[in-house]
This record gives sequence, C-alpha cells and structure tokens, in this order.
Amino acid sequence: MSKTILTGIKPTGLIHLGNYIGAIKPALELAKIEGYKAAYFVADYHGLTKIHNAEEFRHLSYGIAATWLALGLDPEKLTFYRQSDVPEIFELNWILSCFTSKGLMNRAHAYKAIVDSNKKLEKDIDFGVNMGLFNYPILMAADILMFKTEVVPVGKDQVQHVEITRDIAESFNNIYGETFLLPEYKIQAETAVLPGLDGRKMSKSYHNTIPLFEEPKKLQKLINKIITDSLPPEAPKDPDTSPIFMLYKEFASNTEVEKMKEQYLQGIGWGDAKKELFNVMNSFIEEPREKYHELMSSPDKIDTILREGAEKARAISSPFLKEIKRKIGFNV
Amino acid sequence: MSKTILTGIKPTGLIHLGNYIGAIKPALELAKIEGYKAAYFVADYHGLTKIHNAEEFRHLSYGIAATWLALGLDPEKLTFYRQSDVPEIFELNWILSCFTSKGLMNRAHAYKAIVDSNKKLEKDIDFGVNMGLFNYPILMAADILMFKTEVVPVGKDQVQHVEITRDIAESFNNIYGETFLLPEYKIQAETAVLPGLDGRKMSKSYHNTIPLFEEPKKLQKLINKIITDSLPPEAPKDPDTSPIFMLYKEFASNTEVEKMKEQYLQGIGWGDAKKELFNVMNSFIEEPREKYHELMSSPDKIDTILREGAEKARAISSPFLKEIKRKIGFNV
Repeated sequence: MSKTILTGIKPTGLIHLGNYIGAIKPALELAKIEGYKAAYFVADYHGLTKIHNAEEFRHLSYGIAATWLALGLDPEKLTFYRQSDVPEIFELNWILSCFTSKGLMNRAHAYKAIVDSNKKLEKDIDFGVNMGLFNYPILMAADILMFKTEVVPVGKDQVQHVEITRDIAESFNNIYGETFLLPEYKIQAETAVLPGLDGRKMSKSYHNTIPLFEEPKKLQKLINKIITDSLPPEAPKDPDTSPIFMLYKEFASNTEVEKMKEQYLQGIGWGDAKKELFNVMNSFIEEPREKYHELMSSPDKIDTILREGAEKARAISSPFLKEIKRKIGFNV
Repeated sequence: MSKTILTGIKPTGLIHLGNYIGAIKPALELAKIEGYKAAYFVADYHGLTKIHNAEEFRHLSYGIAATWLALGLDPEKLTFYRQSDVPEIFELNWILSCFTSKGLMNRAHAYKAIVDSNKKLEKDIDFGVNMGLFNYPILMAADILMFKTEVVPVGKDQVQHVEITRDIAESFNNIYGETFLLPEYKIQAETAVLPGLDGRKMSKSYHNTIPLFEEPKKLQKLINKIITDSLPPEAPKDPDTSPIFMLYKEFASNTEVEKMKEQYLQGIGWGDAKKELFNVMNSFIEEPREKYHELMSSPDKIDTILREGAEKARAISSPFLKEIKRKIGFNV
C-alpha cells in the first residue's frame, strides 16, 4: 500500500530560487518515490488571510500553479488541485473547530509570534490579527485530515501544525470512534539552504532573493550584486564559503561543479565566477521560464488541469465528509 | 419590494412553552406579514458547538424542524432549510473570518460571559471553550449575509450579533466595493414572557419549564406543580400576579379569558384554576402534538421538506458565493 503525502503551497509571494531549492525541488522528488501517493494543492484560501487585493490574489494563485507545473509537476501522476475547488474542506473546517480547544490555538507558534511582537511594540496583543490567521491551524487540519494524509513533509518550524492536527483528530475520534487518520510528519532535510545576494539564507524577509523566473538581463544584474570579498582574481579561493559557488553547485552538472572547484583553488576572478553562475542558472531556468509564461498567458489551461485535480480530490473528500457527518448524527 | 428576514433555530434543547410563546409564535406571525420574505433555518451546525452525541444531535435537529412544522410553519410560503444542506455558508464562513479582527471576537458577549465565569472559578479563562463557540458570531454572520438578509428579529441580548455582522460586512465592502447588504435588527417585543412552574420566567436554566409537546397526564402533573399562594378557594384573587392566569391567557380565547378574570375576582380554588389551564393548554397542544409525533416517526418526510427548502436557499447562495469569490480574485 502506498502512503498519502500532502503539501499545500500558499500564494502569498513571488517564488524565488530559495523556495525552489528548499521546497519545490525536494517535494517534486518526494512525489516520484515509489510508495508515496502525493496530493499537492494551491492553498489559495490560506492566502486570503493576507492578500486582500483581487489582482494580486489572482496573479499569485495562478503563479503558484504555473510554477509547479513549469518545474515538472506531473498532474497525471499526482493529485494537483486548488483548495477553493473542494468545498468539503470548509465544512470539515467548521466541524473540526467544534473539537478544537481555544487554548490550543492560543499556543500556536505563528499566533504567539505576532502577540510577542505586538507586546514589544506596546500594542494590543491582537493588533492586526484577523480570525483567518488565528484559525488557520484548523483549516490546515481540515486540509490534512480530509484526504486521510499519512505523511506531511514539513520544515522544523511546522511540526507543531501536524501535532495540532493530531490533537484535533484525536478529540473527534475519542467521541465518535476511529474516523480520522493521525498523520505523521516528515522533517525535510535542511541541507539545501540557499544563500541570498548578501550571503545570508535567501528569504523574502531579508530582501535578498533572486526570483525564480527572472528575465536574463535582470538575472545577470542580480547575480552581479552578490556580495564577495576583495581578494584579487589570481588569489586561491575557498569554494565552501562562497555564496556564488553554493548557488553554482545547485544548478551545474557534477562535472561542471568539479571543474569550478579547481578554478576556485587555482584562483578565479569574481566577475568570471558570476558569469559562469549566470550561464548555468539561466540555462536551467530557460525552459521552465518559457513554460511558466506560456501557462500564465492562458489561465484556462491552468484551470482545466486544476479542475481535473479537484475531481480526483473530491472523489475522496465527498464520500468521506458524508461518513464523518453520519457519525456526528446527520442523516446524509 | 419585500424585505428578507432570517431566523435560525439552534437544536440544543427540548422546546418548551416559553420558547413557543416568546420566539416561535411571534416568528410565525412575522412570516405572515405582507412585505416580508422569510427564511427560517435549522441551525444544526451551531448545535455542534455543544452537542457531541450523535443520537441526541439527530433527535434535537429533527425535533426542531418537526416542532416548527407542527406549529404551522408553511414551507411553501417561506424558505425553510437546514444549515448543513447549504455548503456555501461554510466557504463564506472562512472568507468572512479573513475580514474579522480577533479583537471583535474577544469582545463578543457570549464568549466574555464564559471568560468571566472561568475567572470566578479561578480556572484558565478559556477553560471549556472550543473554537466553534469562539467563532460562532462569524458563522452567524455567514448565515445572515449569504441570503442578503435585511432584517434579523432578535432578543435584546442578540443585538451585538447583528452589529458584529455589520462590522464584518463593512470590512469586506470597504475593500472590494458594495457586496454585502448591511442587515438591520428588529428587537422583538418582550410582552410575552411566560412564567414557569415557580413563577419566574420559564427558562431551561431555571428547571421550571413545561415541554411544549408533553403528554396529557404529564402535562396535568406539571401544571399541578405550579406554585400558588395559600388563599382559600372563596377568596378573591388578583389575575395579574397569578402565573396560572398568565399562562391561561396565552392559550384561551378572549371570551374564556374574560370569564376566568371574573372567576378570579369572585374567588376560584387553585385546583379548579389549574384544571381550566390544563384544558385550554391541552386542547391547544393536541393537534400540533399529534402532527409532531407523526413527523418524528417519519424523518424522511422532514428531510424532503428541508431539502426542497435547501434548493430554494441554494438558488440564492450558489450564485452569490460566485459573485463574492470573483471580487476576491477567484476565477469562478
């Protein structure tokens, strides 16, 4: 029997190279593993907790779908759907809320972080918190439990969400008997932390990112901004501490990587190293970038793919919701 | 143009005479007024915040529907549906949560009352609070806004719910333009507060109620328990301070009421007054009680009526949800 793994992708920002290396690439590889049945979804309604602009919301939602498809997600081999196309999730969300103690939500890390920051700024502790933000661990539990997910790949900071999901599922199961499967989390290896333009981890909050589908000229410009030391071209350089090299090895072939390592040790000018980095990056990005733009210019194509995915998803969620409702006492 | 009025009935307890006189009777009369288009619904998913027993949940939900139908609700003339048959409400519930500040929920009366009681008992302030309870003003807003409700008949203690609904609707409208209709509340006259067995207001929390569809023998027994003073039969009595008389006048004809008033002033034994009360009550209850039991023994009949109602309701909710989603940026 294959195990169901589930991953949601929230459309709250432009995808950058760090997202690709840290999240998308490993997720696409995971989906190919024999023994896993993957369900990946565009978590558009999670995005609504933050994005309150129609044009931006639309662009980001399609952007997420187009990105994954452009990078090789095969909708035939996994279930790829849009959360908002599966209404059962929102009914389950309400059901689960009736079995979620408020204390559990008070202790959710993301909420507590906002409270702490508000306290520091001497604001009301709930300043800027909408109920979508406060409730989102419940919606996440609905996402996970709706599809009888067995494994949730997470970063370390998201372990709590899976634990909350298990808590809610157990509260329900204790009353109505075994209904929900308790999901396990699988912590993703953090080997692939990509450095940003300033050498720190590439992250939206550091403003040091390289957008994934950047046009060649802009890409060149951004790469030229990568911070280096002031060693002269002929001086030997340490590849392991060089952000340029760390980026290079994610996109180059093994042979290219070995060759570049030697050049570092013998001495290479930063300008030349940046040119080489541009070449491998751009040639890697070229094809998916074209595919991405092609998809973005025909959203109907994306819709068709996602709707077919939603049909597959609802073939599970619709009968399962009925089963859940029957246990509660509904006559369905 | 007729105005839409909406009333939800939560299945959390057995209906008693006080509910009938204080809520059901005026609501049925309101629905008959020319110029109102009434939508009345069984708020079963609100009940789930409290009832976590399948048999009880089922019995109470059908009980509510059967009670209203037995008392003369005409499903042809108004929209009578079950909340759980309208999935659009739960998607809207999530949408609205993203436009509801958490502070607004912190200040909701029902939640604050629990917090206060927990504080007095020196418990954690959120002891016993599930997220369904905390969120329920949002679900109520979804109930109201989904059907473009113009008037919500409420008791004084529920005015805040309509104000919260208006707040949420305005938050959304301010961003996306006029979308939701701001509902008005209509405070129901409190002339008809029915006394219970002990003379205080008839209320579940005082354990002084007379169940609406009580069998004759039990009804007689309960009426015999009504507290009276120790005046001898022949002494003149004040009808206006007598719970027996106050109950009597709700079920007797005008002529009967006048006659009874005279008997009071001339002197009537409490035993005789109670017998008369039983007679008018029982003859009023007889027919609806039979209809109630008939409906309860064939839940399929109730289901058919409610499903037809849900179809009428979804003819509004389904296109309106699409309109709302388009404004947010969904391509639907």
